[in-house]
Amino acid sequence: MIKNKRLSAMNKPKDELVYVDKKGQRVELYSPTEMPEAGGFLWNKYMMVQFNCRGYAVGQFMQPEPSKYAYAPNLEAKTFMQPEHAYYANHPGRFFYIKDDDTGEVFSAPFEPTKTSLDYFCFSAGQNDIKWRIEALNIEVTIMVTLSDSDAIEMWELNVTNLDNKVRNISIYPYFTIGYMSWMNQSADFFPELNAIIATCISPYQKVEEYFARHNLKEKTFFIADTVPTSWCCNQKVFEGNSDVSFPDGIKAYALKQINSLYEVPAAVMQYQQCFQPEQRMNYRFLFGPASNDQQVSEIKNRYFGKTLCFDQEKNNYQHYVMQSSGPIKIDTGDNILDQFVNHWLPRQVFYLGDVNRLTTDPQTRNYLQDNLGMSYIAPNTARQAFITALSQQYQTGEMPDGILIHPDASLKYINQVPHTDHCLWLPICIQAYLNETNDLALLDQLVGFADNPNKQTVKQHIELALDWLIGARDERGLSYIAQGDWCDPMNMVGYKGRGVSTWLTLASAYAINTWIDICNDYQIEINSKYRAFAIQLNQAVNTHCWGGEWYSRGITDDNVSFGVADDKEGRIFLNPQSWAILSGAASTEQKGKLLAQIKQQLDTPFGTMMLAPSYTKMREDVGRVTQKFSGTAENGSIYNHAAIFYAYSLFKIGEGDKAFEVMRKMLPDDDFIQRGQLPTFIPNYYRGAYYQHPRTAGRSSQLFNTGTVSWFYRCVIECIAGLVGHKGDLLIKPQLPTHWPKLSVNRKFNGSIFEVEITKSKQVSQQTIQVNGSYITSNRITNIVAGKNYLVKVLIPAQSELIIIMGVSGCGKSTIAKQVSQQYNYKYIEADDFHSKDSIEMMAKGIPLTDVQRGPWIDKICACLQKEFMKDNGCVLAYSGLRAEHREKFRQLGFVTRFVFLDVDEKQISKRLKARNSHFFKADLLASQFVALQRPKGELDVYQIDANQPQASVLGQIVTHLKKGDA
Amino acid sequence: MIKNKRLSAMNKPKDELVYVDKKGQRVELYSPTEMPEAGGFLWNKYMMVQFNCRGYAVGQFMQPEPSKYAYAPNLEAKTFMQPEHAYYANHPGRFFYIKDDDTGEVFSAPFEPTKTSLDYFCFSAGQNDIKWRIEALNIEVTIMVTLSDSDAIEMWELNVTNLDNKVRNISIYPYFTIGYMSWMNQSADFFPELNAIIATCISPYQKVEEYFARHNLKEKTFFIADTVPTSWCCNQKVFEGNSDVSFPDGIKAYALKQINSLYEVPAAVMQYQQCFQPEQRMNYRFLFGPASNDQQVSEIKNRYFGKTLCFDQEKNNYQHYVMQSSGPIKIDTGDNILDQFVNHWLPRQVFYLGDVNRLTTDPQTRNYLQDNLGMSYIAPNTARQAFITALSQQYQTGEMPDGILIHPDASLKYINQVPHTDHCLWLPICIQAYLNETNDLALLDQLVGFADNPNKQTVKQHIELALDWLIGARDERGLSYIAQGDWCDPMNMVGYKGRGVSTWLTLASAYAINTWIDICNDYQIEINSKYRAFAIQLNQAVNTHCWGGEWYSRGITDDNVSFGVADDKEGRIFLNPQSWAILSGAASTEQKGKLLAQIKQQLDTPFGTMMLAPSYTKMREDVGRVTQKFSGTAENGSIYNHAAIFYAYSLFKIGEGDKAFEVMRKMLPDDDFIQRGQLPTFIPNYYRGAYYQHPRTAGRSSQLFNTGTVSWFYRCVIECIAGLVGHKGDLLIKPQLPTHWPKLSVNRKFNGSIFEVEITKSKQVSQQTIQVNGSYITSNRITNIVAGKNYLVKVLIPAQSELIIIMGVSGCGKSTIAKQVSQQYNYKYIEADDFHSKDSIEMMAKGIPLTDVQRGPWIDKICACLQKEFMKDNGCVLAYSGLRAEHREKFRQLGFVTRFVFLDVDEKQISKRLKARNSHFFKADLLASQFVALQRPKGELDVYQIDANQPQASVLGQIVTHLKKGDA
Repeated sequence: MIKNKRLSAMNKPKDELVYVDKKGQRVELYSPTEMPEAGGFLWNKYMMVQFNCRGYAVGQFMQPEPSKYAYAPNLEAKTFMQPEHAYYANHPGRFFYIKDDDTGEVFSAPFEPTKTSLDYFCFSAGQNDIKWRIEALNIEVTIMVTLSDSDAIEMWELNVTNLDNKVRNISIYPYFTIGYMSWMNQSADFFPELNAIIATCISPYQKVEEYFARHNLKEKTFFIADTVPTSWCCNQKVFEGNSDVSFPDGIKAYALKQINSLYEVPAAVMQYQQCFQPEQRMNYRFLFGPASNDQQVSEIKNRYFGKTLCFDQEKNNYQHYVMQSSGPIKIDTGDNILDQFVNHWLPRQVFYLGDVNRLTTDPQTRNYLQDNLGMSYIAPNTARQAFITALSQQYQTGEMPDGILIHPDASLKYINQVPHTDHCLWLPICIQAYLNETNDLALLDQLVGFADNPNKQTVKQHIELALDWLIGARDERGLSYIAQGDWCDPMNMVGYKGRGVSTWLTLASAYAINTWIDICNDYQIEINSKYRAFAIQLNQAVNTHCWGGEWYSRGITDDNVSFGVADDKEGRIFLNPQSWAILSGAASTEQKGKLLAQIKQQLDTPFGTMMLAPSYTKMREDVGRVTQKFSGTAENGSIYNHAAIFYAYSLFKIGEGDKAFEVMRKMLPDDDFIQRGQLPTFIPNYYRGAYYQHPRTAGRSSQLFNTGTVSWFYRCVIECIAGLVGHKGDLLIKPQLPTHWPKLSVNRKFNGSIFEVEITKSKQVSQQTIQVNGSYITSNRITNIVAGKNYLVKVLIPAQSELIIIMGVSGCGKSTIAKQVSQQYNYKYIEADDFHSKDSIEMMAKGIPLTDVQRGPWIDKICACLQKEFMKDNGCVLAYSGLRAEHREKFRQLGFVTRFVFLDVDEKQISKRLKARNSHFFKADLLASQFVALQRPKGELDVYQIDANQPQASVLGQIVTHLKKGDA
Repeated sequence: MIKNKRLSAMNKPKDELVYVDKKGQRVELYSPTEMPEAGGFLWNKYMMVQFNCRGYAVGQFMQPEPSKYAYAPNLEAKTFMQPEHAYYANHPGRFFYIKDDDTGEVFSAPFEPTKTSLDYFCFSAGQNDIKWRIEALNIEVTIMVTLSDSDAIEMWELNVTNLDNKVRNISIYPYFTIGYMSWMNQSADFFPELNAIIATCISPYQKVEEYFARHNLKEKTFFIADTVPTSWCCNQKVFEGNSDVSFPDGIKAYALKQINSLYEVPAAVMQYQQCFQPEQRMNYRFLFGPASNDQQVSEIKNRYFGKTLCFDQEKNNYQHYVMQSSGPIKIDTGDNILDQFVNHWLPRQVFYLGDVNRLTTDPQTRNYLQDNLGMSYIAPNTARQAFITALSQQYQTGEMPDGILIHPDASLKYINQVPHTDHCLWLPICIQAYLNETNDLALLDQLVGFADNPNKQTVKQHIELALDWLIGARDERGLSYIAQGDWCDPMNMVGYKGRGVSTWLTLASAYAINTWIDICNDYQIEINSKYRAFAIQLNQAVNTHCWGGEWYSRGITDDNVSFGVADDKEGRIFLNPQSWAILSGAASTEQKGKLLAQIKQQLDTPFGTMMLAPSYTKMREDVGRVTQKFSGTAENGSIYNHAAIFYAYSLFKIGEGDKAFEVMRKMLPDDDFIQRGQLPTFIPNYYRGAYYQHPRTAGRSSQLFNTGTVSWFYRCVIECIAGLVGHKGDLLIKPQLPTHWPKLSVNRKFNGSIFEVEITKSKQVSQQTIQVNGSYITSNRITNIVAGKNYLVKVLIPAQSELIIIMGVSGCGKSTIAKQVSQQYNYKYIEADDFHSKDSIEMMAKGIPLTDVQRGPWIDKICACLQKEFMKDNGCVLAYSGLRAEHREKFRQLGFVTRFVFLDVDEKQISKRLKARNSHFFKADLLASQFVALQRPKGELDVYQIDANQPQASVLGQIVTHLKKGDA
């Protein structure tokens, strides 16, 4: 009984591993072992923590450089989280040991370090907190952590309930690791007057001038409790004793040894020995974070624990902070994972990046600009200020620096010390999105100075200087120099000698110029006609030097070698030049067709589109550092989502909405949670690629949530899928719904008004119609928007019936699958075999294969049948062998939106299957001939190929998922 | 039976925790838990590894910068070992799991990671290998690791023996951790053709120029086996599974999963499933280290495993390498720990430092010079070359750089980028030791260039330039500017504004000048008389400005504040200025007496002499970084052995051999192994100090074996204790034996000859007599030494009878203790109470205390008795209350070498004890009066005070130990 009461908060749905709540407030995981790296992150302006579902944590706070308050057990290098961050026994974490003092049994919550098998486990990532609910030994433990909004402080709540009917003695031990703080000075002690453990360190430094820069550093770590503990320990070695963290001597003993840490690894452990009545629940609260001195710790204690409600007030403050991430769009597509992501988690991630600038003091210029592209939708004033900050650090030559200093004490570090060439082009691109959303034309006339000259010029002039710099930095062929990297910064040796060029950069420059021309045209800004000429020149140069016949190369090296071309065994094709050739207008219709086919064939995977393939396995000295990254990780052929979203955006621009949607949908884990290992609360910078090289690891999430992907993802949702684009203060309506969506409901805030938009596919219309507040409008533009007004917008778009063709040789299971799919979609099921002539049936029964001539009339009969269904607006599922490419093409001409599913089977396996099947007229002997006749689909973008040697249930599952996502 | 056979190699002596073998080849530890941080180090020219007794390891190899081949589980900062290095569950280590496949029982050798309780454990540090012998589950495991002498390779041998009488199936799993190699690229796989696991990484870098500097980096880690494994695993996560390293899933399973590592944390695990006959023994060999490529791994495999004996040959080669550390002196004192240390472990540590220059590419100048002071005894040619290398980097101004670049690609790093002021003075000091040993006068005429001028000058000129620079860098008071540090480099804020001065530096400059004058006098080199004047000036300046009345200050700050003075609450007294005032001749006899008393009182501890006291607990901004180190660690008041050995050396110079010996002897752990936590195979840079502030941790070893201490320790043994000093090619004989040594046997190599020296204390002589090969010589100088000749030298030195006085109030146990001590030394036992007059006895029986007047005749009677014993050359032990200081002084005048032991007791406790004692004439009522009469010894250097409230056995043990060490 009591259990049911408790379950109300975090309630496990039956048989699910992951649950996405319908309000977008929580995503829950019900196993601590299936996705051991999964977690959730919280942040504020001062800090970031990624809480792993098992109790580990990776965090940093800013002062102003990134610092730690919970350290590794050794002297760790200073870094952000590592991609696919490795956890290990003594990794920093926040743990709660629970001991039944009567029996000596122990478990730990959330899971580490004891890893005891639990009766119930729920990790629940919320928008502004992380929660766990655990049950073991008939004890329920709920844990909540949130942050302060005004300081680097973790706020913890722990509830422990005796679920038993008897009185029990239970010891509760919060164990917050502090770790190896410093070899110079580290110590810790318990301060009874503060009810806190305070650890102190002085981190090593050498030069005397560094001393003065360290005056206000927070080098203390505090752990404050609201309840006086029975005992405590501050010394990791003493606590672990001769055991280790999985079952420390300190937990084995009746009471913790009250030992301080004197230049020993500090730890924060407290013990609460408590007699629990049946069903009694005890509550504890803790604060964990950095401070400068004990006085500060005392102030913090008073602020959070001083009065009854102040802890809750601080919790609310943080909730309000995170609520600022609320964005201008809410969608309802029926795809819950997508909806909750777009409506809640996506703007949260965009806001995180933009509001705290990735918690660095010198964000890369390209990241800073693109993060603020995203912020244009959420906090346009922040974006505006960021664009001005960035431009104020531009050089008079037009060149943008590699990083933007956003703190007075900051300096350019790491990659920002290596010269890159793409920063300028992000200016018009990102500012366009801002102008679309805000119509803030005044920005372009705003006066801004330069890094090397305080004399101010307008933003417009700044942008044109940037474009001029790009135009100038080209070789005699008209291609853009890459120097030590473009957007792909580890591509550092293509042009380090000063001659190598980048196809992508040339195309992106053309796109940037075109974007600027569009902006100027929109706002009737006078623009030098040279820009249009240059854009054409750039595209022409690429078509002359970088088109390989089937796709664009990635560039030409210092030594005049084209790479990313068919002759390359590794790095044969790169995604970015293809996407941007579409965006820039360089690619002709024919080129687009070719390159899309190549992307499909070489780069597409079930987990998304790879950035390049095959990924490099060894150093290529004329390409550079990217080839030294591990195959399938990061820029070396992972599904690098930032590149993939560029690709999706380009697809929308040419009306390939289905394909674009597919690319986007694959950025979210769904039925492949275990392989990806991540919850759908953020888009990571990459999923492992090298799909054909390293299938074991393909799809694995990097778990890194710093990525420019999300700004573009948000833009694609708003401007492309929903198609509700701002334009000079008007709202344009040009949605691109995936074929399998019958409708889309959108709530869009724009220009101070709210637009309730219902987009419905209808067979009643042959072109888009729009009703605004009951009246039809003639264009797709809502004008004269009055701020504060609500608009009800009903959009009808022509519906197209769908034809799904399940193809494959006899015995592959196509009929069974087709029947099931037809039921799923409520489509008509058509069996191609039903249309064979008597003669053909007899022939086949004798084991004589059909000829193409004999197949002709058969295909015609099927087509005639389908034609009738099309006229009746019926969707159809056709089970059909589909051996010949020319016949497949015929079906594509019927008017349907056509999608093929190719059940690919092994000859031996099918033969076995056919022998077991007697009723069918087709002889197993004919099989060989079918395999001969089969023209395997190649470059047919609407064909989804699946290994049908697997169990049928699995095959069906995959097909349904892929059809749902818009997979061809 | 079989057990006894096995025990022959490493045989546990009864009831010992630590055993030091008499040949100086091995030191053994018989518990894996009592001294968990204890270990031993091996090194060669390319690498260093500290093997912890439990199986953890800290290592680095040079290419040329320090690099790793076994990494932490996270991205670790680049450092040498940390002081008191912290170990944790996933710390790099070399482990062997042993599983009984029939029962599933598992243990690991040497101890980690399972920490299973073992039937036998022996960690055995050898000169050129480390061994373990373990028994559990009736299985014996012996492990041996040594290094290659020609490359960075660990060579491992594993023997497993079934001690049972039955056939058993046993799985053996070597697990060599590789760890988190890089976030850029890391992977591992098993190569059947090499029978090896090879892990590959590319460590992160950013700039293109760095790429080219990385071409020949060894970024692969190999683990090669001589025997084909049953299975293997290269993936740490897969190996550990849902468990952790203490009992990985991989060990639980029947066979290891053969999974590679694809951008996952690599590991090297192999499994040998083996059926063991009764008593069967299996042998395995492994190689572990870094390589550039697979080809290199293959070559290594062939070289070490290719032919039958090549592994053994390589082992021998390494043994020969380490044997080069053999030094010019062997002593036999009967103190086994000391003898083995001096004869074997000390020269090994000196050689380690000097031969590989601490495995850095830019040793600090002061370290480099002092390390080569030590090398002057072992490899004088190396020392010579080092002095020349150092001088070639001197500036024309005479200034020495902060670090010496010993590799063409090296640059000055860390502390070497902060200006220090003491480097110059080490030149004459270190070169003097070299000249003493070699008589290589030619060095002084050798021509050497400068860092900023290729024009060469003689070494003599270089040295004088260095002295001139020192003389010049002084203020108007004549005191030496400290800038950002002197020998104490973290004392960086005394003079960073350019005005602060160092007492120590001024004194050390004087000593350096005097040393140079001595050298010139010895060799009749003309020397400008200004030097003598400057030396006097320097000493005078110190006496004028830095003498505080009881001791010397440490310096005067930029703001003209003296520190290290009586008014300071922290950093009240520093050891170095006192020692060097003795060396430089600044301290008068009276001053010496005063400062020695202060050292005794404020700095002396059972673990050695602290560098300063009380240690700082907070930043003192006019002293600097030293005050920010944790109290009692490193330069902030630890027993910093380098400073302590300076003190010992200074004590020898004034004939305080007993005190000097005490300081030295405390540098070696002995009966306090557990508190120090270190084996007596090396001297660490420090033992924890802050003896009165943090008694829990005082005495704990830093475990760091990089310290200039050892060169000086060696010098003190050779030149002071044995007193066999080279001088212009002659050998001077001036030993300073501690009082409690009756004799000393020395084998001394000098000038190509061997001197067998027997130094014996004799009451037959009143001054030193020397027989060389049977003939008496008249001076203490052996001249005309013929190389290759053996000299038998018999030295007699006057013996002095010893008087040990055990003092304390009645009931403190002095009679019992005195009797036992007298037996120990075969001294006469004298009971003071036996000399009381009848009257006095009656008074006391009535409870009336004696007056000083009454005590007078009593003391006289005792003295008369002692006088007689002294004339008979008898040593005596006197049990005597010793209440009055004046009476104690009387006993000191008798001619004996006198030492007091003060049994300090608590009034309450003693009262209890006395009440239980009936036979004694002394009434418990008199006790209070005794406490009133007691003048507690204060500043009496020959009094050893001990807390006698402890059990008597423990008190006796401590007294015996301290008397043995020469403790006053």
